[in-house]
Amino acid sequence: MKKIVQQCLLACLLQVMLYNSAVAQYTLADSLWLQRMGTYTMTSSRAYDDLRVLCKEIGHRLSGSPQSLKAVEWAVDVLKKAGADTVWTQPVMVPVWERGEEYLKVGTEGKQDKVEALSLGNMHGTDGKEVKAPLVMFRSLEELRAANAALIQGKIVFLNVPFPAEELNTFAAYSRVYRIRTQSAGIVCAKGGVGVIIRSISTTKDEVPHTGAAHYPDTACRIPAMAIGNTTADALALAMSTGTGTVTAVMMAHCKMKGMALSYNVIGELRGAKHKDKYMLVGGHLDSWDVGEGAHDDGAGCVQAIQVLRNFKALKHRPAHTLRVVMFMNEENGNRGGAAYADSAVSRKEHHIFALESDAGGFTPRGIGLIVPEQDRRQVQSWAPLLEPFGLYDFKQEGCGVDISPLKNTGVRAGELLPDSQRYFDIHHCRHDVLEAVNERELNLGAAGITALLYLIDRYWN
Amino acid sequence: MKKIVQQCLLACLLQVMLYNSAVAQYTLADSLWLQRMGTYTMTSSRAYDDLRVLCKEIGHRLSGSPQSLKAVEWAVDVLKKAGADTVWTQPVMVPVWERGEEYLKVGTEGKQDKVEALSLGNMHGTDGKEVKAPLVMFRSLEELRAANAALIQGKIVFLNVPFPAEELNTFAAYSRVYRIRTQSAGIVCAKGGVGVIIRSISTTKDEVPHTGAAHYPDTACRIPAMAIGNTTADALALAMSTGTGTVTAVMMAHCKMKGMALSYNVIGELRGAKHKDKYMLVGGHLDSWDVGEGAHDDGAGCVQAIQVLRNFKALKHRPAHTLRVVMFMNEENGNRGGAAYADSAVSRKEHHIFALESDAGGFTPRGIGLIVPEQDRRQVQSWAPLLEPFGLYDFKQEGCGVDISPLKNTGVRAGELLPDSQRYFDIHHCRHDVLEAVNERELNLGAAGITALLYLIDRYWN
Repeated sequence: MKKIVQQCLLACLLQVMLYNSAVAQYTLADSLWLQRMGTYTMTSSRAYDDLRVLCKEIGHRLSGSPQSLKAVEWAVDVLKKAGADTVWTQPVMVPVWERGEEYLKVGTEGKQDKVEALSLGNMHGTDGKEVKAPLVMFRSLEELRAANAALIQGKIVFLNVPFPAEELNTFAAYSRVYRIRTQSAGIVCAKGGVGVIIRSISTTKDEVPHTGAAHYPDTACRIPAMAIGNTTADALALAMSTGTGTVTAVMMAHCKMKGMALSYNVIGELRGAKHKDKYMLVGGHLDSWDVGEGAHDDGAGCVQAIQVLRNFKALKHRPAHTLRVVMFMNEENGNRGGAAYADSAVSRKEHHIFALESDAGGFTPRGIGLIVPEQDRRQVQSWAPLLEPFGLYDFKQEGCGVDISPLKNTGVRAGELLPDSQRYFDIHHCRHDVLEAVNERELNLGAAGITALLYLIDRYWN
Repeated sequence: MKKIVQQCLLACLLQVMLYNSAVAQYTLADSLWLQRMGTYTMTSSRAYDDLRVLCKEIGHRLSGSPQSLKAVEWAVDVLKKAGADTVWTQPVMVPVWERGEEYLKVGTEGKQDKVEALSLGNMHGTDGKEVKAPLVMFRSLEELRAANAALIQGKIVFLNVPFPAEELNTFAAYSRVYRIRTQSAGIVCAKGGVGVIIRSISTTKDEVPHTGAAHYPDTACRIPAMAIGNTTADALALAMSTGTGTVTAVMMAHCKMKGMALSYNVIGELRGAKHKDKYMLVGGHLDSWDVGEGAHDDGAGCVQAIQVLRNFKALKHRPAHTLRVVMFMNEENGNRGGAAYADSAVSRKEHHIFALESDAGGFTPRGIGLIVPEQDRRQVQSWAPLLEPFGLYDFKQEGCGVDISPLKNTGVRAGELLPDSQRYFDIHHCRHDVLEAVNERELNLGAAGITALLYLIDRYWN
């Protein structure tokens, strides 16, 4: 009990010390502005209309593809129309990977049937020839790493690792298994295997495969790697554990890397009223995988970032610091856009007071991930009463988006929108990532939440 | 500053006084149990499979319909299979309303075209004849109430009231406008109007009409009342404000009330280990509207309640108090099930320590609405660290479900699951309320969250 009293008195003292800053952490005027902004966003946002054009008129847009350049033109045009003071493109060299025709057949000798499959990104494929080999199954990357090469030599490895459904946060689940996709080809190569099939990193019980970036650790490795959907993986595992004949796969894929190409980040600015040389960045990535429409990943983040600028314009609020809306290129298979932006910021000695990304889907908001000093996190937490109406209550997590990471690594305070995570890996990197999977109100609530946070940061940070 | 110090010291004193209870509000064992339960629910829940059967094999199930009785049989069977110690049905007399064939045409003289429309529930229709009359439009219920009867006499009223999109909580929006649906027929009747068309209370921009309960305040009123989708309402309003001819509607509907019928609440018990005569209730409603599949409203709540029982069984946790899973009948157009349950509880002098409903959709959880004494609310808030992993952070709101209300009115502490509200009025009472609109992980997270709350209430309440 004595300890409790001591702790309590200490807390009391701290509270008194924080008195001046604590009571000044926001004003009634802030509260009223945020309320007006919320109303405006929920009734007049153009974010969903923007997303419709990006998804339906341009579609998917892998870096280096003709569509990705159309998306650049679209972004320039939309930012201009949204009222940015300046809009420009920032050159970025990006890898060009093309899928081409591909198929996968599985079955026992003499009877292999086609199943839905997608080559993993950045992989080489089979040069259009069929690679046929018996399958060997592993249940984890550790099991694969520990396996004797003799078991794998000449075989196609089936990595049958289920999504960790027990993780209540699906991004935590993803972080436990994404290396299945990125690293398996390298490990299988090193042990003499001739191909890789992975169970998609997906929360849905269907046959839909999910692609995503993979890499070869050395140039000698060129084996094909494909993903299959959860129900296909279940059927394949069953056939391998109960069937009588050897289960064999036939892989054919034309996919390959085709060097580098010139592409662009797209940047729009709303000049600050007081500190025009200090920047608040809000962004998403313009590229997507070459399936679906890149609606949640990350069309949603792009249109939300544009909507922040529109909200400020519509409410005639010129921020003190310059707002930069950045649509990055090549998050999916290289992160060259994020790196190019950070390089430029360093070389131009640009001062960013904060950078925020929305790249976890256009779902209803829950929190803001932050990589900032503790005192700044506490200040964001002090704004909770203003942010909770937008669904934002969780300010404990660490994190910023992939595109923002290089800038964060230069010491810039960074963060990310944390929407509800339950549905994200239903649609991630697959043909389900289309406009129809985005809910307009959820998307707008995210845009409003980001606007609210940036408004407060603009008012109270330097 | 002096005042702050005083307040702080007072708070400090209170904190010390609360010390004993505060630190005993949960244990490490609770935390570990909830973690195991979360894992079990997210990996092994049968809630979505239950919902598939209810939606796809039975379908929609308005009280008094043959399907509603099939749903009663289904519920008895599922509760038995889930391992309830006792399962029984509780008789309830319910109103029987049948839709039958119906159509709505709108247009100018000589050219009326059919548009998608649904009669409102409990309305009488036109006895199969066509009711044709010019339209007069109002923008609010207040405007309608204030209107001169001469303007409405012999006309069909079009109540064109948009969903208040600016409300960040859609249930708050709904509470502002649902009387458009429930009261307009009565008001129009009293002013001599011959029919009502309302803009659906819906967040989607499509032609899909949303039905729901309405009522006539006196038996003399029998005018038809229908809902049209948002885009149909937009087109109609445009035609009325810009067209040259008189805009006329033709209504035809066979719908009518057909007296009362016998139906049932379904109740399953898991007997308490210590206090078998004290009950914790968890429930949803088994009936639905006669369109869609009643998936979110409220198949989701039913299968979540059943899953609570399954979770306790699977983890071999017999609660101290008796758990009652109740699937109520007739929430949609009468709430006779909720009333019958409360009547029975009073006449049998049953002691309920808490009653919780899930009837706000199977979306990802955000909070628990409560109608309890302040000290109990504070205790629930003290459990926040255990509940937040399930998405539950908001324990400030007042509320319980419609079915639970009669029991709450007898003095029982009550509450409701508050899932994310953004998508609910996309699907509410319309053909979009189907299994495919429910996300399995979101549904399971809700079931886990309810289980967590009831586990703690069972441990710490009496």
